[in-house]
Amino acid sequence: MATNAPAKTSFHMTPEEFRNRGHAVVDWIADYYQKIEAFPVLSKVEPGDIRSQLPQEAPAHPEPFEQILADVEKLIVPGITHWQSPNFFAFFPCNASGPAILGDLLSSGFGVQGMLWATSPACTELETHVLDWLVNALGLPEKFRSSNTGGGVIQDTASSSALCAVLAARERATKFISNRTGAKQKLVAYTSNQAHSSIEKAVKIAGVGSENLRLVAVDETLAMRPEALVAAIQQDKAAGSTPFFVCGTVGTTSSNGMDPLDKIGAICRQQNLWFHVDAAMSGTAALCPEFRHFQNGLEHADSYCFNPHKWMFTNFDCDCFYVADRKGLVDTLSVLPEYLRNKATESGAVIDYRDWHVPLGRRFRALKLWFVLRYYGIEGLQFHVREHVRLAQEFAAWVREDKRFELVVPPPLNLVCFRLNGSDELNQKLMDALNRSGDLYLTHTKLNGRVVLRMSIAQTNTEQRHVEKAWRRIREEASRLA
Amino acid sequence: MATNAPAKTSFHMTPEEFRNRGHAVVDWIADYYQKIEAFPVLSKVEPGDIRSQLPQEAPAHPEPFEQILADVEKLIVPGITHWQSPNFFAFFPCNASGPAILGDLLSSGFGVQGMLWATSPACTELETHVLDWLVNALGLPEKFRSSNTGGGVIQDTASSSALCAVLAARERATKFISNRTGAKQKLVAYTSNQAHSSIEKAVKIAGVGSENLRLVAVDETLAMRPEALVAAIQQDKAAGSTPFFVCGTVGTTSSNGMDPLDKIGAICRQQNLWFHVDAAMSGTAALCPEFRHFQNGLEHADSYCFNPHKWMFTNFDCDCFYVADRKGLVDTLSVLPEYLRNKATESGAVIDYRDWHVPLGRRFRALKLWFVLRYYGIEGLQFHVREHVRLAQEFAAWVREDKRFELVVPPPLNLVCFRLNGSDELNQKLMDALNRSGDLYLTHTKLNGRVVLRMSIAQTNTEQRHVEKAWRRIREEASRLA
Repeated sequence: MATNAPAKTSFHMTPEEFRNRGHAVVDWIADYYQKIEAFPVLSKVEPGDIRSQLPQEAPAHPEPFEQILADVEKLIVPGITHWQSPNFFAFFPCNASGPAILGDLLSSGFGVQGMLWATSPACTELETHVLDWLVNALGLPEKFRSSNTGGGVIQDTASSSALCAVLAARERATKFISNRTGAKQKLVAYTSNQAHSSIEKAVKIAGVGSENLRLVAVDETLAMRPEALVAAIQQDKAAGSTPFFVCGTVGTTSSNGMDPLDKIGAICRQQNLWFHVDAAMSGTAALCPEFRHFQNGLEHADSYCFNPHKWMFTNFDCDCFYVADRKGLVDTLSVLPEYLRNKATESGAVIDYRDWHVPLGRRFRALKLWFVLRYYGIEGLQFHVREHVRLAQEFAAWVREDKRFELVVPPPLNLVCFRLNGSDELNQKLMDALNRSGDLYLTHTKLNGRVVLRMSIAQTNTEQRHVEKAWRRIREEASRLA
Repeated sequence: MATNAPAKTSFHMTPEEFRNRGHAVVDWIADYYQKIEAFPVLSKVEPGDIRSQLPQEAPAHPEPFEQILADVEKLIVPGITHWQSPNFFAFFPCNASGPAILGDLLSSGFGVQGMLWATSPACTELETHVLDWLVNALGLPEKFRSSNTGGGVIQDTASSSALCAVLAARERATKFISNRTGAKQKLVAYTSNQAHSSIEKAVKIAGVGSENLRLVAVDETLAMRPEALVAAIQQDKAAGSTPFFVCGTVGTTSSNGMDPLDKIGAICRQQNLWFHVDAAMSGTAALCPEFRHFQNGLEHADSYCFNPHKWMFTNFDCDCFYVADRKGLVDTLSVLPEYLRNKATESGAVIDYRDWHVPLGRRFRALKLWFVLRYYGIEGLQFHVREHVRLAQEFAAWVREDKRFELVVPPPLNLVCFRLNGSDELNQKLMDALNRSGDLYLTHTKLNGRVVLRMSIAQTNTEQRHVEKAWRRIREEASRLA
């Protein structure tokens, strides 16, 4: 060993090395997508399998990049559940696409912080602009545009949007006293018993308390019953509580139930309640005018969110959150220490997105959304959304035709809820057998107390042949279980 | 125009196109880093300049990728404040590095959701493992390891970690009654008057109320005075309130003040208060044993966070949040709907990180951190941290030697607070002139009522020559103003 080797003066990757290594990683990803159907969709590892192959301590000295990339293949891939496989039909989609991944790569490369307008004006302005684009593209109410009283912001998830909506509602209802003295009022929130669990989480975080969240009954389409909402509000008022927040859903997680926003919204206006609409997955469908009727009544909403990272080919994280009154949101979340003061903020001419959500720091997420909107155009996005809906409707027709199966609810869009005639256990067994096979991955829920299988058709690369194969495999396993 | 062109059957980017476009984007980023010093660090655009060049509506039809990338150069770059420039000395660093960017690119490519262990076991296990590695690498208390009662998780920012700490503390203090019935108790939180604004934000969000946050006085080093903390606690108890949470800081944002964790921690243990430690920027210094004394007393902490996305060359977002009692955190944030139930979760043998933070969805952020730790090794990270501290100490020595300037506090690590002798206005003018020049970017704060300039030396590529140039430019502008 050379004893007089010169000491290293940098351990950084040079731009030239980045160029070479970067090409290798891009190639790795391209190869991954070319062979993705060869992997079992659901990872087959057992708890601890991944960790047991990793060294006990962090490496003391640098390791070659080739070795790290080789270990991704060897140690990580077996523990991956392939959300980008066209045979992924579980939960909701979490779609990536080429333009999104590359837009996000540029965001990593710039490495800017968009907490204030001044800390990278393009980061804030592109975000505001692209979210304004989507108001028109989705047929959202004009009040959500930044040129009006509202505006949009990118959050990580619909859970965070729900939290911000609950907080702004809490402050509006209590005239900003909760922020100062604590959430000591007897506030009550409402959503359907099919709503996403993030509403309960938000209500707990905000200090409202889960006992003060009413889970309103639904009708046979699993949509909130407006008269049940009215009754719950009246009961709470009679008990001396203060109703303050209602969340309606466009496309519930379990079954894609569609709450009647027009009726719920009218109730909220009459009762002066904050109306939040969660369209996390299904909101993207509004790109197509023929699916826009599900959001009738959205003009009553105080806030709205949908996730391009679900069905709009924009990789995670990208949740678009809109408010009708941005001042109310900013007043709820703003804290301005001296070290963040700057001329642009004080001029009042700019948006500082740090006041629109929980985190202070924020990355340049609008880039990937901008890339997607331009690369596909509205035309391209509409094409693939329509195709997914067509495939789901076709799958539902096959279920209807096979007497062994039951279509549990008519699918409004791209999520099909069905079950094999028989016990919950039988359906669970069917699902486990399919998932264990690695040929496809689907998940379950409970509707009206029964286990139901969910076929969510919206992965970027899912085509007719994947849905046909899935149905063939489902019938095969059902026969085997019979 | 051809009227019988075949209809498009896909608007997606193929893997082969991704390969080509991906190489182009990687090259673009490599070129950007090669010429980054040629850009003015602080963007020179005025409010609205970026938006005014963008079309009013989203494109109806697909646009060529080359055009989109060309527009990044033309429309976006002028609105970028170059956080990755070695002449960036503002706020805190937000460091990217080659291995981090490429690890993050792989994360985008996989596009997996790590909300549950089952939804991609490698995503959860690598995160747990790498955060365990850091316990030893940073000399953190053993209780933060997942093999003990605690564990670590990656959050987006220290703001979100602070919120989770406040929430877990609130539930511990109220025996989980707040989650159920609301935050109606008279709880009081404590931090120093130099602590980050995220503590106030968290206390407001959690329904505790900003009036129930005590900003404890500091000593001449801008560290929290333990006896002032004790006095505040006693006063609140006498008034019938319930103290529940204390946040200590390793390296405050304004001045890098170091709270005496050992004394504060002992008070917290004695009074049974949740002790959270925020080491967002300075935590990375603990990679070097000689800087570890700043975290003496951390063994008393219930929770801790630091940001590899600040000083550890891991691009945003990557905040590492540790708790001593993971059960308390999970019990605070867990909500389990039917559609997320699965065998692995029910076995109790796995971690489901969705219960460790606000969002449900989460990307594979551990990859970039793993890439950084392996590419640099602990040796490489230590080298660059030591170099940054050395440069800051050298800068401080230059300030001390120049009679026109005052070193406001001795810099513990890599942040130098100084001012030009004279009025606040003079210092503001000096800073504005420097930032307008584009040669460097630094920001200000107020200490003891006076405007102070902050020279934060920790950008990935900052070397001796950049700090020398900055000091030369500062003296030049000072002479011009004299």
